[in-house]
Amino acid sequence: MHFYYFCNLFLSKKMKTLDNVESFFPADFSEEQKAKAKTLFFKNLALKAHQFYGGKIQTVPLAPIYGFNWFNVWYTPGVSAVSTTIRDDNDRSFELSNRKNLVAVVSDSTRVLGDGDCTPPGGLGVMEGKAMLMKYLGGVDAIALCVDSRDENGEHQADKLIELVKMVQPSFGAINLEDISQPNCFKVLDELREQCNIPVWHDDAQGTACVTLAGILNALKLTGKKLSEIKTVLYGSGAANTCIARLMISDGADPKKMIMFDSKEALHDQRERYSGDPRFYRQWELCKITNPEHIKTEEEAFKDADLVVALSKPGPDTIKPEWIKLMADKAIVFVCANPVPEIYPYKAKEAGAYIVATGRGDFPNQVNNSVCFPAILKGTLLVSARKITDEMAICAAHSIADFAEQRGISVDNIMPNMLESALFPKVAADVAMQAIKDGVAIKNLTWDEVYQQAKKDIDKAHEMSNLLQEKGLIPEFPEEIIKEVVSEVVKEVRD
Amino acid sequence: MHFYYFCNLFLSKKMKTLDNVESFFPADFSEEQKAKAKTLFFKNLALKAHQFYGGKIQTVPLAPIYGFNWFNVWYTPGVSAVSTTIRDDNDRSFELSNRKNLVAVVSDSTRVLGDGDCTPPGGLGVMEGKAMLMKYLGGVDAIALCVDSRDENGEHQADKLIELVKMVQPSFGAINLEDISQPNCFKVLDELREQCNIPVWHDDAQGTACVTLAGILNALKLTGKKLSEIKTVLYGSGAANTCIARLMISDGADPKKMIMFDSKEALHDQRERYSGDPRFYRQWELCKITNPEHIKTEEEAFKDADLVVALSKPGPDTIKPEWIKLMADKAIVFVCANPVPEIYPYKAKEAGAYIVATGRGDFPNQVNNSVCFPAILKGTLLVSARKITDEMAICAAHSIADFAEQRGISVDNIMPNMLESALFPKVAADVAMQAIKDGVAIKNLTWDEVYQQAKKDIDKAHEMSNLLQEKGLIPEFPEEIIKEVVSEVVKEVRD
Repeated sequence: MHFYYFCNLFLSKKMKTLDNVESFFPADFSEEQKAKAKTLFFKNLALKAHQFYGGKIQTVPLAPIYGFNWFNVWYTPGVSAVSTTIRDDNDRSFELSNRKNLVAVVSDSTRVLGDGDCTPPGGLGVMEGKAMLMKYLGGVDAIALCVDSRDENGEHQADKLIELVKMVQPSFGAINLEDISQPNCFKVLDELREQCNIPVWHDDAQGTACVTLAGILNALKLTGKKLSEIKTVLYGSGAANTCIARLMISDGADPKKMIMFDSKEALHDQRERYSGDPRFYRQWELCKITNPEHIKTEEEAFKDADLVVALSKPGPDTIKPEWIKLMADKAIVFVCANPVPEIYPYKAKEAGAYIVATGRGDFPNQVNNSVCFPAILKGTLLVSARKITDEMAICAAHSIADFAEQRGISVDNIMPNMLESALFPKVAADVAMQAIKDGVAIKNLTWDEVYQQAKKDIDKAHEMSNLLQEKGLIPEFPEEIIKEVVSEVVKEVRD
Repeated sequence: MHFYYFCNLFLSKKMKTLDNVESFFPADFSEEQKAKAKTLFFKNLALKAHQFYGGKIQTVPLAPIYGFNWFNVWYTPGVSAVSTTIRDDNDRSFELSNRKNLVAVVSDSTRVLGDGDCTPPGGLGVMEGKAMLMKYLGGVDAIALCVDSRDENGEHQADKLIELVKMVQPSFGAINLEDISQPNCFKVLDELREQCNIPVWHDDAQGTACVTLAGILNALKLTGKKLSEIKTVLYGSGAANTCIARLMISDGADPKKMIMFDSKEALHDQRERYSGDPRFYRQWELCKITNPEHIKTEEEAFKDADLVVALSKPGPDTIKPEWIKLMADKAIVFVCANPVPEIYPYKAKEAGAYIVATGRGDFPNQVNNSVCFPAILKGTLLVSARKITDEMAICAAHSIADFAEQRGISVDNIMPNMLESALFPKVAADVAMQAIKDGVAIKNLTWDEVYQQAKKDIDKAHEMSNLLQEKGLIPEFPEEIIKEVVSEVVKEVRD
């Protein structure tokens, strides 16, 4: 017999929304127990909910079937006119199929959201999730392509992944690369951006950089500091942090006041690991322009730093409270490892941090790619941009930051969240205008045209989801399962 | 100013359903003009309808979003439990993602439904159509993967296509190969069936063979002839006709009474084109066992033949009326080239054919893969079959034929059509049982379990489509466009 524990439980209807997860747990739980319980709750619930629904994304017709003869329009013999029209002018595939609004979320599953190499199908949960967010938040259709890029020796080959993406291009409007480990990720992105006819977005690098920059911009507003003047520690030297450094510098940060750490030590122009290896050219670029004093230890680096951006290994003990204590007044701490931040926010605050941001939705200030990639891809697709430039990502960062500022920001609320749906069409329109400015857009639409179309598509996605829920075509999630999970978690955290 | 022609036009509501397309055209049109007008009407309407909707298939969530915290379940941090669970046991990807119900419709677009090589994106209209049918008829999710398999010299490489399918396997429950030209199609299918862990279906070969066999079985019932005794002419020696011959022989037809033609002459064991070339081993197999008398001309072959199955080049003058006149009493004529049959049905009937079947939905007796592939894939996926055997395809053929027989067949109605929705769960269940019998199924379900699940999923797909139409989330198709197309077509056919 199960023992179900309930403390302050809201009414069933409230429980289903998960709006007050903290209240599911005993009031006497410590901060650490609460944090642990929440993580465990979401993980255990995820497993059961994924099993209950058997996935997160499905297909439905985009066009009507009023009767039998419509099959002669959508399929043979009518479709023949579509085939030959596209044959004679490949660009017409964008108007005669859903290609223009379809994104492939491609991963080799070698660096799945904090869980590392999960084997090829192991990325499906994340990639399908991304496809769900793409539609729900950005009105963009997307599918998960978790790819086995291993050779006969079981080694993941960047070239195989590159070849695959080049081959599937004709079916998609854009490619979203995801969760590819270093150093393959750099090569894959750079070669594909060069060689593809459709835009290629690397969400771990560009997406994370965009949204992190947005958070930094707003945090700086609250501290009264300037991007061009701050001292920054970048903890972690992966695809995300190297891209964050690049965008920050493009947007005005002073590279001389930046110090980046890899898993061993700080980067500088004497680091042989990077100077000799062309696969790490992104890190080497930063080695040459940052940390001119060759600072080596965390203690030196954190001293008087205004900002730390950690995207390293999951915590909670990766960043030490002692280091935070060394930082300047009104210290800004971004600890964005998934699924557990490098230091829990309450601990960073205890150590003197003024603003703390994480990658988690259950803590304040979530730095979450999901507020940027659906909008950036939507804007890109609507003007048929042929690539996504760094300027477009920086533009999106400012657009996101300004949106939050306009509706009001505070130390525990520097970022918009995914349910602030007015954000997405605005960012899409801003990004589309930047694409036109950068000369990469094929269609020349106005801000308002992009905004209206994006809004219409996003509203439609919400309406469809709600309708399917209302009509039971997406069955209701059994409250019993939520209760069961709470009970398990309380037991496990107590023991 | 447009001149809109309307003859016997039904009320607007009726027009939208396209139920009476023939009545759209002038009563004084000859049979040939009517046939021409219908083809042209569907083609021109297809172009405008595809442009109006911008494609035929889209994605929607399969799972609910009741509030912000559900993103922590479907995405980070909760999804981490899904990633690691699949990492530790890859088979669980089938229950924790939509992979189990997701099919990739893969083509190199080199032989698109009667239009030949349409360049890689040229197949999107057909493949997206297939994905739409897969969902609407079979409750199976599917996406179009039109693939560029050309090497540096612009040659399509079977090996590139094979490699691609092997790489994307982890994301799908099954692969549907489609519209790949000879001889690559044989190699691609055979190697993939051998090397993939998920079932690979070649709809042009196996699907067409299955549904043609179903039609033949019912035509024979109406003529009182037996499969084991009839003389058959197979006109065309492509993937479809070679597979039809194989399934017919497996099901009891006498190969000695079969004569197959390629585009030059009849096949027999002296044909050097096939004996020397391993790429054509399917044809060579048939060379060795059919046409022992080395018949060479059409005239000899059609003499006293009971059945002709043509899958050769689009007509309408590929099969000559004189040949049909040579056939035995109660001649059965399958002329299935797309988009125009090898001879128009009215002409074949004039020449003495008793039963005529085509690939077209706007003539009687459509031999249409769409009545088999959604059901076969559904049954296959529901019992997690690891391949689709010839026995499963033959079982489906009998299941389809019996379904039609039970609701009544006649010379102009030997086949069920796509809107006879009771067909699909029945065929799915029959195929699943055959998979279990053949030892290729992983899940051991009962007939009734498969039937109920298939029916539930198909009903849901219909409900979703209808709901989206009702609520305007699939906008109503403007009647004006239908009228415009009718007007264009009447003008063109008259001139």
